Amino acid sequence: MVVKVYGPHCASAKRVLVCLVEKEIEFEVVPINVLKGEHKDPEYLKLQPFGNVPVIKDGDYTLYESRAIMRYYAEKYRSQGVELLGKTIEEKGLVEQWLEVEAHNFNPPAYNLVIHVLFPSLLVDGTPDPKVIEESEAKLVKVLNIYEERLSKNKYLAGDFFSLADISHLPFTDYIVNNMGKDYLIKERKNVSAWWDDISSRPSWNKILESYRPPV
Amino acid sequence: MVVKVYGPHCASAKRVLVCLVEKEIEFEVVPINVLKGEHKDPEYLKLQPFGNVPVIKDGDYTLYESRAIMRYYAEKYRSQGVELLGKTIEEKGLVEQWLEVEAHNFNPPAYNLVIHVLFPSLLVDGTPDPKVIEESEAKLVKVLNIYEERLSKNKYLAGDFFSLADISHLPFTDYIVNNMGKDYLIKERKNVSAWWDDISSRPSWNKILESYRPPV
Repeated sequence: MVVKVYGPHCASAKRVLVCLVEKEIEFEVVPINVLKGEHKDPEYLKLQPFGNVPVIKDGDYTLYESRAIMRYYAEKYRSQGVELLGKTIEEKGLVEQWLEVEAHNFNPPAYNLVIHVLFPSLLVDGTPDPKVIEESEAKLVKVLNIYEERLSKNKYLAGDFFSLADISHLPFTDYIVNNMGKDYLIKERKNVSAWWDDISSRPSWNKILESYRPPV
Repeated sequence: MVVKVYGPHCASAKRVLVCLVEKEIEFEVVPINVLKGEHKDPEYLKLQPFGNVPVIKDGDYTLYESRAIMRYYAEKYRSQGVELLGKTIEEKGLVEQWLEVEAHNFNPPAYNLVIHVLFPSLLVDGTPDPKVIEESEAKLVKVLNIYEERLSKNKYLAGDFFSLADISHLPFTDYIVNNMGKDYLIKERKNVSAWWDDISSRPSWNKILESYRPPV
């Protein structure tokens, strides 16, 4: 059964796609144009009632929320492709911890920066707010300073092994580094910069980025 | 080895405590007074560099982020106490999905409501914003309407079994129902109301709520 991934051009869907490539799982994609509001169409809302991207369909099984989908496949195909959950239950706990840090500390300011700078048409009034941009960048600086310390002791976020926690940072960090002229946020921090160079040069990420270019 | 839980009076720590009770895991608590800023003390920041509650220490192992800690213990002691991750990997995927929905759809407006109505002293300028309160309640209404539909078909969020996804909703829903006079948000929805009556009457939740009263 081939996994169907809805909304492959969106940042959060790219987390799922990279995970599928790393796990050597076959997939096909169903484009959803969020700039045209297709994620709010009644048919799409039957799959994802909150109107967010992505969703997967795998036979009769439907699942949404990018980090939940990654966990599902990383566990279901644990022995296939790259191990993305660590080797022990304690390592897996740290993968979960850093996935949550990404979701609650890194992503909110990164998302606000990206939306206000690159996609203001997705905002309710269509107008970027300079105060949100400034505050988001300030929050991100604090978060990245903690990452710098963490990555001075471990090659990757959860430890000395690549994991879902690293994958989860790829799409929004790519926007910040390559589409917004804010690469200094990463480059000015030696360990964050080395980590970014490492994870962003993985063939899985480059394949997905090349195949499903963001709408900028 | 007894698990040490830091910050038991805080809402997010209560997720972890209920999980530990359901899994029959022994613990002790270390109070952290967030109203006095103890979560920003240098000693605490060594455990949790982002300055958030809770953290656990289990021998030499330290873990933070409430939902990550719950996953760790639910999996480590899978065959002990109540099964909180579903029986199959597909059920577990749905537990993960609804944990993410709680984190990204339910919790942000619920958290903003609680902070602005009950704990404005935790805000940067100490003043509640009526616009945030109004917008948060409107967002919560939309989320709860989707929950009402989901819970018309399943007894619990992830299916017909109690799970981490339900536990994760307890602390902030309790504030909304019992401390803010906004119980109508739950009571006006038949299926959400029945679900709330069910999960909030569990002995684990009542034990934790009684033992570690919120600071209101």
